[in-house]
Amino acid sequence: MAEKVTIATVAKYAGVSRQTVSNVLNTPEVVREETRRKVYEAVEALGYRVSQAARQMRTGRSRLIATRIESTGDGINGSVLDRFLHALTETAARSGYRVILYTAADDETEIATYEDLLGTYQPDAFVLASTHHSDTRTTWLAERGLPFVTFGRPWDAPDRHLWVDVDGAAGTAAATRHLLEAGHERIGFLGWPSGSGVGDDRRQGWLRAMTAAGQDTTGLDHACLDTVAEAEAAVGALLDRDPAPTALVCASDSLALGAMQAARALDRPLAVTGFDDTPVARAIGLTSVSQPLEEAAARCVRLLTRLLDGEAEAEEPVLLQPSLVVRDTT
Amino acid sequence: MAEKVTIATVAKYAGVSRQTVSNVLNTPEVVREETRRKVYEAVEALGYRVSQAARQMRTGRSRLIATRIESTGDGINGSVLDRFLHALTETAARSGYRVILYTAADDETEIATYEDLLGTYQPDAFVLASTHHSDTRTTWLAERGLPFVTFGRPWDAPDRHLWVDVDGAAGTAAATRHLLEAGHERIGFLGWPSGSGVGDDRRQGWLRAMTAAGQDTTGLDHACLDTVAEAEAAVGALLDRDPAPTALVCASDSLALGAMQAARALDRPLAVTGFDDTPVARAIGLTSVSQPLEEAAARCVRLLTRLLDGEAEAEEPVLLQPSLVVRDTT
Repeated sequence: MAEKVTIATVAKYAGVSRQTVSNVLNTPEVVREETRRKVYEAVEALGYRVSQAARQMRTGRSRLIATRIESTGDGINGSVLDRFLHALTETAARSGYRVILYTAADDETEIATYEDLLGTYQPDAFVLASTHHSDTRTTWLAERGLPFVTFGRPWDAPDRHLWVDVDGAAGTAAATRHLLEAGHERIGFLGWPSGSGVGDDRRQGWLRAMTAAGQDTTGLDHACLDTVAEAEAAVGALLDRDPAPTALVCASDSLALGAMQAARALDRPLAVTGFDDTPVARAIGLTSVSQPLEEAAARCVRLLTRLLDGEAEAEEPVLLQPSLVVRDTT
Repeated sequence: MAEKVTIATVAKYAGVSRQTVSNVLNTPEVVREETRRKVYEAVEALGYRVSQAARQMRTGRSRLIATRIESTGDGINGSVLDRFLHALTETAARSGYRVILYTAADDETEIATYEDLLGTYQPDAFVLASTHHSDTRTTWLAERGLPFVTFGRPWDAPDRHLWVDVDGAAGTAAATRHLLEAGHERIGFLGWPSGSGVGDDRRQGWLRAMTAAGQDTTGLDHACLDTVAEAEAAVGALLDRDPAPTALVCASDSLALGAMQAARALDRPLAVTGFDDTPVARAIGLTSVSQPLEEAAARCVRLLTRLLDGEAEAEEPVLLQPSLVVRDTT
């Protein structure tokens, strides 16, 4: 490799002092623009790279964003967070940040991991997904003044911190209206047991659209755990009732797949919509609600960079709109 | 937060000198076991954490492993590398390493990213996936003596560096034998255009099993790009021939899904096997070859830690065996 380029080399090339080079790299706002330009030109011409370790010692900035990688689950619904991670890595890189990963099974472990990361890699900020009621993670970070953004609302207090989310209720409302327009009246909802912010939000969208259309929802609201097998069993029992629903709005593609399998096994017609527009939805022709994940990741990175630059006062939480992708099942 | 715990605090608590604490943390092998134990106890009792930046300045170790996150594609085949990333993050954490991510569209961009990462975060090692012929990435890293392991063979020279891979040919051979045992004779192969290490390996497995069973393979070897739509078009044309294949071993679940859709559209019987056992395969009841990804990630981490500890001489490349998951399509 070529001879090592140091601050002294850059200073000599730019015709300035080493202190000036250091100022440009660490506190550019104190340096005149003309001088800044000369130093940047020298940095570029020489291919100078600041050692991150050395820079971190001086500036306290690591340019690392830490985020959790979720456990894989059934691989259907989890694929959404994988797509979000891809988009986050790409958009963060464009702003000069890298993503460092950790895993954690629950809030407590995740908080212990924050401590560990802060004591070692000193990430500048955290991106948290899967927000939920009584989320102790955000409280812990907020109490310490550590910069973070959540992908998901703080369900207990919407203005507690900066967040980016997708309007799930709008998604299930659109799915319900689509089924109403197709002539369905007994449109059921299959979601998760109540108490989860995301699940209850998706249930509200269905309820709102049904109520707006003057449809009775008695006996049409159902819940089970978020697996294909649980949904298949639950919907099998539902279809045996009289009157049975003719359509089902589901809170996830896993639930929708289970619902379709139950209807097929009983040879009963059932229109079905899912949520998240996963590869499985595309493979089986399932109508599903699609989240704008690239946009969500980009907005998270923007909020974080504003936070880190101390310019977040003017920033607001971001609620993005999903879209319905209509396929064979409706 | 509590008062900052320093090396001095640890030294006082353990009743040793600051130099001894520093030795235990950085070169534990030079310290007597009894002393080491005392220092570790003090570190634990006080909750002492070494600043990673400070440690990196002293030891030159960042305890970061860099790896690429692949672009999402159709979300079917890419899910395998997402699962590998999950497993890599988890197993690396157990050995005290974190994963730092980057994206890159081609080898050249990836090499530029290595330079950038080495100039900033100084990762201790790289894990590369998607190895291919004329892989300039491994040459670049090897020339500079940088520690790395690939998940995927070096297709041009198997003993060029340490690697972990799954025996794809064994997987397609098992799928082919399974179809032969079910009575099929005209078993076709649908893979990618020849020239890709992974794709050609999977083709060889089919060819080997057919040849061993004394079956003629003339006119049964087919290729198209790795998308559902391309496979559907290719298999549609195949099924119009006389004689048409009665079964198809596919190099990916995307290809297998396209093959199934073509057979269904033409209402023709066709047994199909896929590769990677993705969530889509489970959703559509597709027989598929499953890779042991958790094991692969764990073996990568083991090889890396041996490399970093300078004890890799006794280590060998690792070729893991896949398994066939039989479902409705065969």
